[in-house]
Amino acid sequence: MRVAVDAMGGDFAPNEIVLGAIEAVKEFSCEVVLVGDETKIKPLLERYGAQALSNLTVYHASQVIEMHEHPGAAVRKKKDASVVVATRLVKEGNCDVVISAGSTGAAVAAAMFGLGRIKGIERPSIATPIPNLSGTTVLLDSGANVDSKPKHLVQSAIMGSIYAEYVLGIKNPRIGLLNIGEEETKGNEQALATYPLLKQLTTINFIGNVEGRDIPKGTVDVVVCDGFVGNVVLKLGEGLASAIMQLLKEAIQNSGFIAKMASLMVLPAFRGLKKKLDYAEYGGAPLLGVDGGFIICHGSSKAKAIKNAIRVAKEFTDKRVVDHIRENIAKEGVITNEGD
Amino acid sequence: MRVAVDAMGGDFAPNEIVLGAIEAVKEFSCEVVLVGDETKIKPLLERYGAQALSNLTVYHASQVIEMHEHPGAAVRKKKDASVVVATRLVKEGNCDVVISAGSTGAAVAAAMFGLGRIKGIERPSIATPIPNLSGTTVLLDSGANVDSKPKHLVQSAIMGSIYAEYVLGIKNPRIGLLNIGEEETKGNEQALATYPLLKQLTTINFIGNVEGRDIPKGTVDVVVCDGFVGNVVLKLGEGLASAIMQLLKEAIQNSGFIAKMASLMVLPAFRGLKKKLDYAEYGGAPLLGVDGGFIICHGSSKAKAIKNAIRVAKEFTDKRVVDHIRENIAKEGVITNEGD
Repeated sequence: MRVAVDAMGGDFAPNEIVLGAIEAVKEFSCEVVLVGDETKIKPLLERYGAQALSNLTVYHASQVIEMHEHPGAAVRKKKDASVVVATRLVKEGNCDVVISAGSTGAAVAAAMFGLGRIKGIERPSIATPIPNLSGTTVLLDSGANVDSKPKHLVQSAIMGSIYAEYVLGIKNPRIGLLNIGEEETKGNEQALATYPLLKQLTTINFIGNVEGRDIPKGTVDVVVCDGFVGNVVLKLGEGLASAIMQLLKEAIQNSGFIAKMASLMVLPAFRGLKKKLDYAEYGGAPLLGVDGGFIICHGSSKAKAIKNAIRVAKEFTDKRVVDHIRENIAKEGVITNEGD
Repeated sequence: MRVAVDAMGGDFAPNEIVLGAIEAVKEFSCEVVLVGDETKIKPLLERYGAQALSNLTVYHASQVIEMHEHPGAAVRKKKDASVVVATRLVKEGNCDVVISAGSTGAAVAAAMFGLGRIKGIERPSIATPIPNLSGTTVLLDSGANVDSKPKHLVQSAIMGSIYAEYVLGIKNPRIGLLNIGEEETKGNEQALATYPLLKQLTTINFIGNVEGRDIPKGTVDVVVCDGFVGNVVLKLGEGLASAIMQLLKEAIQNSGFIAKMASLMVLPAFRGLKKKLDYAEYGGAPLLGVDGGFIICHGSSKAKAIKNAIRVAKEFTDKRVVDHIRENIAKEGVITNEGD
């Protein structure tokens, strides 16, 4: 198993990316190829005493796609950009899976152009695992495709079910359509048109509409929505969790000397909660629907997140997620209510 | 100031509604008319010793709209439903504002049919105050209009700005468009078409795109989005806040005897946080854009929430929100990019 890591993508690249890769090759049985500017990566490997690790190599790429660039145009123009080169290594069979913490738009574009789509999939989806009260809920699409049609949501449901089952180990995962009420008659035009299509599917366990509150409650394993809504949900969740932790800290700070002393004693519990809410623990989110492995990381990923993303990449490859998607999409045939 | 309260709407109606009304007339200088089945309401007033309060009266309405009914059809058919009658009392000038914790769909339909729209407003919006790190963010639309066009979002922005300024007392409120990135070029078709329209407005302080994480952070005072997205945001926020509180409790419970003792000392801080996140403290959310006052309450409202909603209703009326909306909508003229 060989992972191509975009060493130049992310707020803390290349330093934290390199550190995460070093930790991963020491901890997991896998090979990592760091793709990017070798004049920047090699000195880091030396600094961390990792230049001699046999399962960690560098593949030079001279360009970088910046956050402000138009994703599609940048991917087409910068043929030697780290994320483009990493994707090419997978396409050509030299690596099994890509990891990037750079611009999400550029990652999606590089994957679409470089790997192509699985037959029957029109738009890829980002499947993000979110912690809930009892485990993990997969949210998709969390930002690859912002104007989804009902058939795209159907494709997301099929793909999300496979990811939850094979990678997260959830047997017969419960799939819900994100909506504003539980009844089949509730929702906007998109949700109303999607519901009957999901009901027809034979390869998933569709439990009907779910609401925003069902995500943290953990009453559903895979939540399907369009990429605009999914991205809002993801960022609201992150922001709210961190705001509540801050409010709690302030409340304790303002509650007098004895309470402050007491709070020192509950600190371990507090840290456990923080860990549960920390995206870095969950590693990356796979881009499902492209014809190859591609894991997208949070832009502010540090070493731990990169290391965990490499673990996710390994599971994604070992469990043959792309093959299972191909099979189930073929089984379901064309599911649409748009006459095409 | 006279408030018409739908005594039959909500999970805990009529008991908690009646209790909330009793508390409100004792605490605020206002009159309340309880609209609903007098054979159910009058015994409650007697039980709570409130039958002789001069500023609390009962107005009989024989029907109730149930949660499962189709809102539009039910409002048209049940002319003596409590929410329909309460709205009529405002339309005919007997009351100043309606409050209902019943079906949101039925409330919106009753308000639209009964009060009509303010000239220049095509769709009303529910404006929900949400607690953030430093105060309150108004989210609209949070569920009145689930397939919004760009011009509807523009109307929401104008109305939300007035509500934030006059009722919440925020000077020159910062208005943001909920999107998946800060740049003007980011977003789905709806957001991309809305941004330039918001930029043209002269009566609001448009600060550009905001993301999900900006809501709890408090870097924006009014967040504009369509009713589908807004409803998902609202319910996710509620669910996540309560899930985090539960996780924290469990973490403390599992952290041993000393930590458990310590946690008793931080309990006041903990309660303060809970109060900050409790929607009941904020009372109801106004339905903006209809030609009269209409406050929508959470379906699970208890007495405290109803009492606070009556306070909101009073401020809404005292501050002449409907008049200000009428003036600013007229000032802005027709803002659209749809050629109509």
